[in-house]
Amino acid sequence: MRITKLLRSATEKAAFTRKPSGAPPGTLIYTGRREMEKVQIHLTTYTQDVFKTSEGEDALPIRDTAGTTWYDLRGLHNIGLIEEVGKTFGIHPLALEDILDVQQRPKMEGYPDGVLLLLKAFHYDKETRALSIEQVSVYLYDGGVITFQEDPGDLFGSIRKRLETSSGRIRTRGADYLAYALIDNIVDRYFNVLDKIEESLDELEDTIMKKPEPATKSRIHELRLSLLSMRKSVSPLREMVGSFSTDEHRLITDDTQLFVRDLKDHVIQITDLVETYRDVTNGLYDLYVSEISFRMNAVMQTLTIVSTIFIPLSFLAGVFGMNFVHMPGMDYEYAYHIFWAVMLLITGLMLYWFRRRKWL
Amino acid sequence: MRITKLLRSATEKAAFTRKPSGAPPGTLIYTGRREMEKVQIHLTTYTQDVFKTSEGEDALPIRDTAGTTWYDLRGLHNIGLIEEVGKTFGIHPLALEDILDVQQRPKMEGYPDGVLLLLKAFHYDKETRALSIEQVSVYLYDGGVITFQEDPGDLFGSIRKRLETSSGRIRTRGADYLAYALIDNIVDRYFNVLDKIEESLDELEDTIMKKPEPATKSRIHELRLSLLSMRKSVSPLREMVGSFSTDEHRLITDDTQLFVRDLKDHVIQITDLVETYRDVTNGLYDLYVSEISFRMNAVMQTLTIVSTIFIPLSFLAGVFGMNFVHMPGMDYEYAYHIFWAVMLLITGLMLYWFRRRKWL
Amino acid sequence: MRITKLLRSATEKAAFTRKPSGAPPGTLIYTGRREMEKVQIHLTTYTQDVFKTSEGEDALPIRDTAGTTWYDLRGLHNIGLIEEVGKTFGIHPLALEDILDVQQRPKMEGYPDGVLLLLKAFHYDKETRALSIEQVSVYLYDGGVITFQEDPGDLFGSIRKRLETSSGRIRTRGADYLAYALIDNIVDRYFNVLDKIEESLDELEDTIMKKPEPATKSRIHELRLSLLSMRKSVSPLREMVGSFSTDEHRLITDDTQLFVRDLKDHVIQITDLVETYRDVTNGLYDLYVSEISFRMNAVMQTLTIVSTIFIPLSFLAGVFGMNFVHMPGMDYEYAYHIFWAVMLLITGLMLYWFRRRKWL
Amino acid sequence: MRITKLLRSATEKAAFTRKPSGAPPGTLIYTGRREMEKVQIHLTTYTQDVFKTSEGEDALPIRDTAGTTWYDLRGLHNIGLIEEVGKTFGIHPLALEDILDVQQRPKMEGYPDGVLLLLKAFHYDKETRALSIEQVSVYLYDGGVITFQEDPGDLFGSIRKRLETSSGRIRTRGADYLAYALIDNIVDRYFNVLDKIEESLDELEDTIMKKPEPATKSRIHELRLSLLSMRKSVSPLREMVGSFSTDEHRLITDDTQLFVRDLKDHVIQITDLVETYRDVTNGLYDLYVSEISFRMNAVMQTLTIVSTIFIPLSFLAGVFGMNFVHMPGMDYEYAYHIFWAVMLLITGLMLYWFRRRKWL
Amino acid sequence: MRITKLLRSATEKAAFTRKPSGAPPGTLIYTGRREMEKVQIHLTTYTQDVFKTSEGEDALPIRDTAGTTWYDLRGLHNIGLIEEVGKTFGIHPLALEDILDVQQRPKMEGYPDGVLLLLKAFHYDKETRALSIEQVSVYLYDGGVITFQEDPGDLFGSIRKRLETSSGRIRTRGADYLAYALIDNIVDRYFNVLDKIEESLDELEDTIMKKPEPATKSRIHELRLSLLSMRKSVSPLREMVGSFSTDEHRLITDDTQLFVRDLKDHVIQITDLVETYRDVTNGLYDLYVSEISFRMNAVMQTLTIVSTIFIPLSFLAGVFGMNFVHMPGMDYEYAYHIFWAVMLLITGLMLYWFRRRKWL
Repeated sequence: MRITKLLRSATEKAAFTRKPSGAPPGTLIYTGRREMEKVQIHLTTYTQDVFKTSEGEDALPIRDTAGTTWYDLRGLHNIGLIEEVGKTFGIHPLALEDILDVQQRPKMEGYPDGVLLLLKAFHYDKETRALSIEQVSVYLYDGGVITFQEDPGDLFGSIRKRLETSSGRIRTRGADYLAYALIDNIVDRYFNVLDKIEESLDELEDTIMKKPEPATKSRIHELRLSLLSMRKSVSPLREMVGSFSTDEHRLITDDTQLFVRDLKDHVIQITDLVETYRDVTNGLYDLYVSEISFRMNAVMQTLTIVSTIFIPLSFLAGVFGMNFVHMPGMDYEYAYHIFWAVMLLITGLMLYWFRRRKWL
Repeated sequence: MRITKLLRSATEKAAFTRKPSGAPPGTLIYTGRREMEKVQIHLTTYTQDVFKTSEGEDALPIRDTAGTTWYDLRGLHNIGLIEEVGKTFGIHPLALEDILDVQQRPKMEGYPDGVLLLLKAFHYDKETRALSIEQVSVYLYDGGVITFQEDPGDLFGSIRKRLETSSGRIRTRGADYLAYALIDNIVDRYFNVLDKIEESLDELEDTIMKKPEPATKSRIHELRLSLLSMRKSVSPLREMVGSFSTDEHRLITDDTQLFVRDLKDHVIQITDLVETYRDVTNGLYDLYVSEISFRMNAVMQTLTIVSTIFIPLSFLAGVFGMNFVHMPGMDYEYAYHIFWAVMLLITGLMLYWFRRRKWL
Repeated sequence: MRITKLLRSATEKAAFTRKPSGAPPGTLIYTGRREMEKVQIHLTTYTQDVFKTSEGEDALPIRDTAGTTWYDLRGLHNIGLIEEVGKTFGIHPLALEDILDVQQRPKMEGYPDGVLLLLKAFHYDKETRALSIEQVSVYLYDGGVITFQEDPGDLFGSIRKRLETSSGRIRTRGADYLAYALIDNIVDRYFNVLDKIEESLDELEDTIMKKPEPATKSRIHELRLSLLSMRKSVSPLREMVGSFSTDEHRLITDDTQLFVRDLKDHVIQITDLVETYRDVTNGLYDLYVSEISFRMNAVMQTLTIVSTIFIPLSFLAGVFGMNFVHMPGMDYEYAYHIFWAVMLLITGLMLYWFRRRKWL
Repeated sequence: MRITKLLRSATEKAAFTRKPSGAPPGTLIYTGRREMEKVQIHLTTYTQDVFKTSEGEDALPIRDTAGTTWYDLRGLHNIGLIEEVGKTFGIHPLALEDILDVQQRPKMEGYPDGVLLLLKAFHYDKETRALSIEQVSVYLYDGGVITFQEDPGDLFGSIRKRLETSSGRIRTRGADYLAYALIDNIVDRYFNVLDKIEESLDELEDTIMKKPEPATKSRIHELRLSLLSMRKSVSPLREMVGSFSTDEHRLITDDTQLFVRDLKDHVIQITDLVETYRDVTNGLYDLYVSEISFRMNAVMQTLTIVSTIFIPLSFLAGVFGMNFVHMPGMDYEYAYHIFWAVMLLITGLMLYWFRRRKWL
Repeated sequence: MRITKLLRSATEKAAFTRKPSGAPPGTLIYTGRREMEKVQIHLTTYTQDVFKTSEGEDALPIRDTAGTTWYDLRGLHNIGLIEEVGKTFGIHPLALEDILDVQQRPKMEGYPDGVLLLLKAFHYDKETRALSIEQVSVYLYDGGVITFQEDPGDLFGSIRKRLETSSGRIRTRGADYLAYALIDNIVDRYFNVLDKIEESLDELEDTIMKKPEPATKSRIHELRLSLLSMRKSVSPLREMVGSFSTDEHRLITDDTQLFVRDLKDHVIQITDLVETYRDVTNGLYDLYVSEISFRMNAVMQTLTIVSTIFIPLSFLAGVFGMNFVHMPGMDYEYAYHIFWAVMLLITGLMLYWFRRRKWL
């Protein structure tokens, strides 16, 4: 698997652009790959009693103030629309720039009118062992939440369902709780990815024990890269959730911060797991190397035993096959039998010696 | 041994469920395996003078206020009963959720009406070299302690005996001392596990020194996983006991905190031991690899000495076995004797050369 | 690639001089290599409305107060000129000394009349895989910025263009914003270098997987050195940008500090990337070693199988080629056929045994 | 050497008991091995002018208040006596428990009536390369010091002599200075142990360079374990001495704390040395592995050169030894001479090729 | 090179003595080796206008108060003289003890009447690759500086020259600036040592790439020990210079502390370099091991190819050399030609197979 893919995203590398160095700050450039034809927009507005939802494509953003609004935008490539959204909801230009630059570290940044939460969503395909990473931005403002992503897959489907069926507390609480629920949803998916990685580790262990193949070492390498890539995203996440739970931004209520404490526990648990799996992977590498060494030792012993026994015998056979005219004893009647007796004796002595050296 | 088993628990993997991502917080789902048919309950109430105990199966919880109550519940799979217990003793829904989710990190969480202490109990079976892990929750409330676990084995038998025989201070002190004693009991078992791991390390060292087997490297790997798994549980334990001893929760008296200082010492000692054993295991791995290398070197030297001596000799024997019609000297009377003399000379020179290179 | 080159600069080593030990502090000695014939000077003065620029060689510095001044000096070897500049702009002797000593760690130092920012610019040539490092000094004073470097390449061309075309905020803000923009420009180039290193890592991974060459191990070594060299420059940069953003120097306005926060994010991201690439490089090294081990194991197995089958057979052929006068059975009619049958049987048994040991 | 021995003590493992888990805190159990028949007691009382000393066996403790008292008790197995001592000098039960549990980490604990200092004394036998560890407890109370240990060897002989001969300040100062002097005495012995370990490292380096033996790798392993074991005791010692020098316990005077600063320096130096020796040991391991690799490479090259030259030659000799009826050229007069010429040519070419590949 | 030498000093080990354990604190014992016959003393007194210097051997110290005094003493073995100096300048006995114990860690200690600065001077002989270490003590008192060392080489010659020629600020400033200048002088020499180590690393890299020799691995080991030894001295130096720059001792003026900031930068730079070189050395070790592995693989492939081709051919040649009476086909006219054709075919097939496996 390509290092590039893993460390950035699972999309084609050519699709990535760095912002040209020297570009003034605040320039809006989408640094990812266009994943879809049209932009998909979900606009959900709810209060405890009311639930309205509408779906559109490349639709203009409207600020709805009848309740908590969740403006879910999939498709970052339409920069014009993003600018429109920015103007409508009053998002700071630097925040917009960060949303479009999908190679950011996870972070939380407070602005006068809102809070931007940047994080990575993971997907691990066990068949192809491909780990794909997507940047998701959650922007919390006074009255609602805006989510930005490029991938057309409905990452937040379960949250939309909970809102619709009004299961749990979610409809009775404000926009900050929604932001928490969205982030919690992404973080929960990390456990799924880690479960699949764990299965891969299990399988790899079996393979190494039974019969290491040429592919084994590259699979260890891939897993290392995947875990490296996860760590890169998870360790700043810890900070981010930390500032989410302690920051005194007026948009985040004390009530929600109690739940964020739980989220923080999960992120710490994920960090622990990633580190543990990294250790396990290193252990598997050591196991692989020692397995190969052990096999090589066994192979060498076999070769040595066979060669050491037969090479001297062959020499003797060669000697008695020489055509010297005068070779005393060649015409002795039992010479051939004595030859065989000596051969067996030599072989026996060698086998005894090998056994004493514990090679047999 | 399966990585999965070690890093989670010693039960079958299929039995584990992650909470579905997107489930609202506070949903009660038991994420472990059902270990027993029926729930076992021990209800113990005591004052300095009185000691009452009753045992039941799936019995309804009753709050007894005649003294310090210890409600010992074994069997987390019965969610209905857990909910009942939660209602009777006023346990916060988030606390209940943590108790049922057996894949938590050890932690202490304060709630308005009580303190939840989550930790792991270990058992190491030296025969099968299986390390099993179980989550135990100790909930301290005003007037008593509730313990939750799934395993039917009586983990707290010795404490119950101390209560009954009133040995030591235990009956004269309150619920917080009982909570301390229960946790201390679990932590003490860690030393037993570590002792058994130490014995395994000893045996492994002997095996490596005498005759490394194919199984040796997987045993090193297993021990690494076991220690990794212990570290994963022990390092947050340190934090937990730390907050136990410093937290100013009204349910924990100053008197008990003096004993917790002792407990903290033990946890630090365990952390030290786990780290030391990890270092020892790494040392054993190095020893194993260098042992294999050394053996391979010895094997190669043997092969090389034998081959290097006999391959040229065999060539010469082959030469004099050729059927050319005109081979001068073949009919010389002492040719055969000269041949042998030359052979011995070559062998002698080679042996001398090997000895000078310190291969012999 | 020479370690020396990488850890210092990509110029010839002989060109470097350490300041003689025992020289009093404040002695001006240029410790780099003379890269150009003449000094190149760009003098740019601007306000929101006005933009003046002039270019010269070895020209005397003049302090222009009509707006924000940027005095861009390329050519540190002319110590006389540097002293002149120092006098004209009132730069502290210790600051001048640091500017000329190109083996400094990146740092920010506040002086009564100005702020000195020292950092390294990188260039990575993918063809020759040479990483070149150059020290750039940015001196911020009341009314302007002076930049010092030796390399004749126009590092700051894009900034000069932005100033001229007045794109973005740059003309409306003061000297501290210009200093920020210049540093941001250098830091942005780090991403380009890291992208090229990433491509090298990708290529290396492919090579190792397909056919490791003798050059592979030295390329891994080179990449390690390059990353080591980057880390050496980047880790103090973090500190430097940190003090840039928190220092309460009167020359740095609060307004600019908001932008420096962004810069800090970039530097942290670069630090992360360098560490991640170091881990990836170590992973590649492990992959390389295990690839070689695996290949060697395959080679050994082939040799062992062939030798183990044919060496005993050759011995038997040798036996029946001996010239003993009395060899019973040699004249048996089907002896030759039996010989071949026995050969095939032995071969078959061995192949079966190899298959059972999983060598085939 | 057994891991168990090293990580605990140099006594037989079977002699160690862990406190049974579930035992109430404060239970007095000696967890070490009985080293001597009878308890040895030294009671020393001194003022600046007076010096009294008495020796006894299993004698009852008496509190002497005529000066500073040093009650030196060797023999922890007599629990009854220890309890008596505890009562006479008013030692807290938890302190007594720690004194008897010889598997404690070094620590300092303040009690209302005294200060308990627990630490380890080391002895390294260079012949057997056995590192033995013993727990020594120093209890400082108002008016004197009590020392507890099991080993009959007179660890504190030099201090007793200094007291008797009144050399240095020791008689003019109080009990806290005596406690300092006793601990300083133990810590000084660490340097002796480290010197012997250094000698072992030197010898090991020589052996690896000259001729690595099978024992070499186990000696490296032993040294690692010894250093691991020292680190385990030394790193908490740093903490302990730290709290000794900063703790504001009324029994420790400011005057003595000046000397403890010196002691702290020594402990830091020891910590440094242990870490450095650990690094050196790792370096020796690497040296050993690369030595073995280098030797194996040399062996393989020899084998390959000999085999590659002679195997083809042997084949040709075999060909001309075949018994085909029609073999053209066999009767050519100079065939045999041409054969030898070709042999020499092939050999020459191969040697040239080996030289070009730098194998010769 | 002996580990002992490197970790202590470059002098003969036997010359070192540890202070006997149990010796009372304050005992004056010189723990180094006597390097010279007589003590050399330089007494320099200066004000801005006056400069007096006198040289002597074993001369008695006199306290000159006419200006800033620098009493430079070379020869620590004369304990009587050291005691005299101590009395004359009022140096604390514990300070004197530290000056004579040349195995101290670098440190700064404040006493009521002065400040003691202990540090190590390094010298690296590139020919013998010997790193020698010497302890230098700088004692700053009210009115002057005393320097103590054993080595007769004039370490501070350049400072004495600067004083005499009055170059720079040195004569206009007080004793604390002199102390700074002396320490700066020693620290500057570290760069020279590091430059030489860098050259050694360069050479080593070349050797490994071209033709690793048996000596290569021991040179890597030596460099590791040298860097370990430097780190041991440099890391506490950082602390020392830190307390020099922040300590509010009345003898150190604010003016001098500005210069110490510069010194601190240098020490950090040295620490960085030592760590970087340690990483480079580890990289070289990896390069060495992979080079050996690669070579061994190449050797093995050659051996395997030759053996695998010729061993079966030799077998066949052996078969047709057997002396069975009835061997069908031996008298067929073209049998010999068919034999050669089959040989060539087998060889061709094998070469094809090797090529496909990428062994050729």
